[in-house]
Amino acid sequence: MADVDVSSILARMTQAPFSPLEPSDRLLVGPGPSNVPESVREVMQRSQLGHLDPEFWDICSEVAAMLAQVYRRPSGLSFPLSATGTSGIEAVLCGLVAPGETAIVAVAGFFGSRIAEIARRRGAKVVAIEAPLGQAVPNEAILDALARHPEARLVAVVHAETSTGVRHPLRELAQALAGSDTLLFADCVTSLAGIELEPEAWGVDACASCTQKCLGAPPGMSPLSLSERALERIRARDEPVPLSLDLELVGRYWFERPAPYHHTAPILHVYALHEALRLVLEEGLEARWQRHEEVGRYLQAELRARGFELLADEAVQLPQLSAVRVPEGIDGPEVQRRLAREHGIEVGGGLGPSAPPIWRIGTMGVNATVEVADRVLEALDAVVAHRRRLAPASR
Amino acid sequence: MADVDVSSILARMTQAPFSPLEPSDRLLVGPGPSNVPESVREVMQRSQLGHLDPEFWDICSEVAAMLAQVYRRPSGLSFPLSATGTSGIEAVLCGLVAPGETAIVAVAGFFGSRIAEIARRRGAKVVAIEAPLGQAVPNEAILDALARHPEARLVAVVHAETSTGVRHPLRELAQALAGSDTLLFADCVTSLAGIELEPEAWGVDACASCTQKCLGAPPGMSPLSLSERALERIRARDEPVPLSLDLELVGRYWFERPAPYHHTAPILHVYALHEALRLVLEEGLEARWQRHEEVGRYLQAELRARGFELLADEAVQLPQLSAVRVPEGIDGPEVQRRLAREHGIEVGGGLGPSAPPIWRIGTMGVNATVEVADRVLEALDAVVAHRRRLAPASR
Repeated sequence: MADVDVSSILARMTQAPFSPLEPSDRLLVGPGPSNVPESVREVMQRSQLGHLDPEFWDICSEVAAMLAQVYRRPSGLSFPLSATGTSGIEAVLCGLVAPGETAIVAVAGFFGSRIAEIARRRGAKVVAIEAPLGQAVPNEAILDALARHPEARLVAVVHAETSTGVRHPLRELAQALAGSDTLLFADCVTSLAGIELEPEAWGVDACASCTQKCLGAPPGMSPLSLSERALERIRARDEPVPLSLDLELVGRYWFERPAPYHHTAPILHVYALHEALRLVLEEGLEARWQRHEEVGRYLQAELRARGFELLADEAVQLPQLSAVRVPEGIDGPEVQRRLAREHGIEVGGGLGPSAPPIWRIGTMGVNATVEVADRVLEALDAVVAHRRRLAPASR
Repeated sequence: MADVDVSSILARMTQAPFSPLEPSDRLLVGPGPSNVPESVREVMQRSQLGHLDPEFWDICSEVAAMLAQVYRRPSGLSFPLSATGTSGIEAVLCGLVAPGETAIVAVAGFFGSRIAEIARRRGAKVVAIEAPLGQAVPNEAILDALARHPEARLVAVVHAETSTGVRHPLRELAQALAGSDTLLFADCVTSLAGIELEPEAWGVDACASCTQKCLGAPPGMSPLSLSERALERIRARDEPVPLSLDLELVGRYWFERPAPYHHTAPILHVYALHEALRLVLEEGLEARWQRHEEVGRYLQAELRARGFELLADEAVQLPQLSAVRVPEGIDGPEVQRRLAREHGIEVGGGLGPSAPPIWRIGTMGVNATVEVADRVLEALDAVVAHRRRLAPASR
């Protein structure tokens, strides 16, 4: 904030009265948020109940019950934190690691780095195991680190690394850790309701996600899922955690009746999450995974056919998020601006100053359809005029 | 969570498919949330932009500019945290107090206690100065504590104590602290846009509020306002704070362009806040304060005329929140249930296990009208049949 120049902001203050918003239409096929289904938008128009109304508590109970199904965790507890995915990850890490304890963190991109950063701020000793961008951290390297640091209380990985489009082999890691006292946390921000995820069957103790990607609600809450032993550790904690991130209190708020006050839930967002979860279960979780898989593979095949290269190794490429290398000589950000301006399409760029020149294309939630993929491909063809320039014949 | 019985939740899991929500209509005249104006609801239906879209950043800039006006703080920075008011208070306290430092906290109810609790969790040495429920902590007692603890880095008070309906004499406290190196923080959750609040003119360094009370948006964000010297302390901090509560990073996210990624803003809620702030400025801040004042005084006079007693001392009674003592022999929670069921009206009860038997009636935002006050009074008359039983003639 040292560098913040607020003069332009202050200049705007003289422009009052401000006008009502009229945001442009966007097909949101960046790394998230995705577009929100009509019925999810619509439910946010319903009558707002108070957060201490027993009728609202029933809605919360249904949200938790549906979340347990979408997380496929019949035991333990699944509930959302009333904040963004970043806060949800931080709440879980604060609950599972105390200052001075060791956490092994797989860092294969921006969001792995953030887990390490959050754990360090918690006062944990972080053992970061890195992989080059586009690859997953090998499970063997994580297990080696655990052998060197048997005192580690937590292994943390990103299931779907949103900065690169890489899937971590989470099931295999969980199975390799079976029987260990070290808990396993997975950042499921981009994976929940998009790709196969079975925390309880696999043995993943804690997950944190967001609402605005494959789940299809607007951003604003962080669905969490905790195993029994994760809950035990949270309850047994001696070191204080921030009140707003205290999962013992948040859990009581979601499951005890009358609900003990902790904060005011974002009521309309709880409605939106209720409807989004309902749509996921109505479609069927496995059908939804399959849809994301098919559309992602279609898009990726079409991109490769046009000569584009993907950042991620094919063996670990996520279906729902494709990081596309910006071809030499092309101005990546300018292409993004033209896609937005001329086609109403949002595609993401690289995340953070050290990111390579990439576009990130997400086909998540309602946008995981062949029609959407085709619309993106056509717009890319029009803006990049890429097919002609990079087709084999012209090389 | 040790006591949570999830069996009823799990039983519901067999009830799928879940039905779309149809929440009951409610006049929300408890301690918050209040009802959301039509145009605020409507703007949440507009096209959702991505959080990294420059068009969205312009909206954020307007929100910050309007917030600076509603907080009447031309210098420093005003911006919302993407979380509830509880998180906003915690973010400010984490930024302004380091572990081991002393904070003087005025505790005149539930929310004063929470500030003390949040500061303790931060590792601060908390000097709590208490007042009986219904009264404000005298400024003299706070100044005495500061004289005994000149090392204190922060004085924290609740401007409008939502649990009791008491207003802290904030202006006088700020003036008494002028020239001190100890910063002043005010919890403005229930005061912002409802009663007079002039942080910069008075000398209040930091404020945190919510969106769902006098401001009239749904719950989900926490508008903050920081003076230059509060920002300096936040920047100079050595001790880490949780990443999601780091106001230096959140400030950069709101004011630097391109915005450095910190989290995904709750986009539709930012739209709602934009519209709510626009309505406040359109009405005029002082006209809005006046409206809350007149309606609250009207409601309170009518309540007293019916023989009800208010919890707060009249000298410090907030207009927008009236804590009404439940008369002897009346079942307070049953009255709340009947008001909801028979009249569609939400009135609050006491907060926390040690609260006395009270109802809390809020006339905030769009509900600060004589018509709403009359509707509440008529419903109370019908349910409590109070006028007859407590009228002087029958005593």
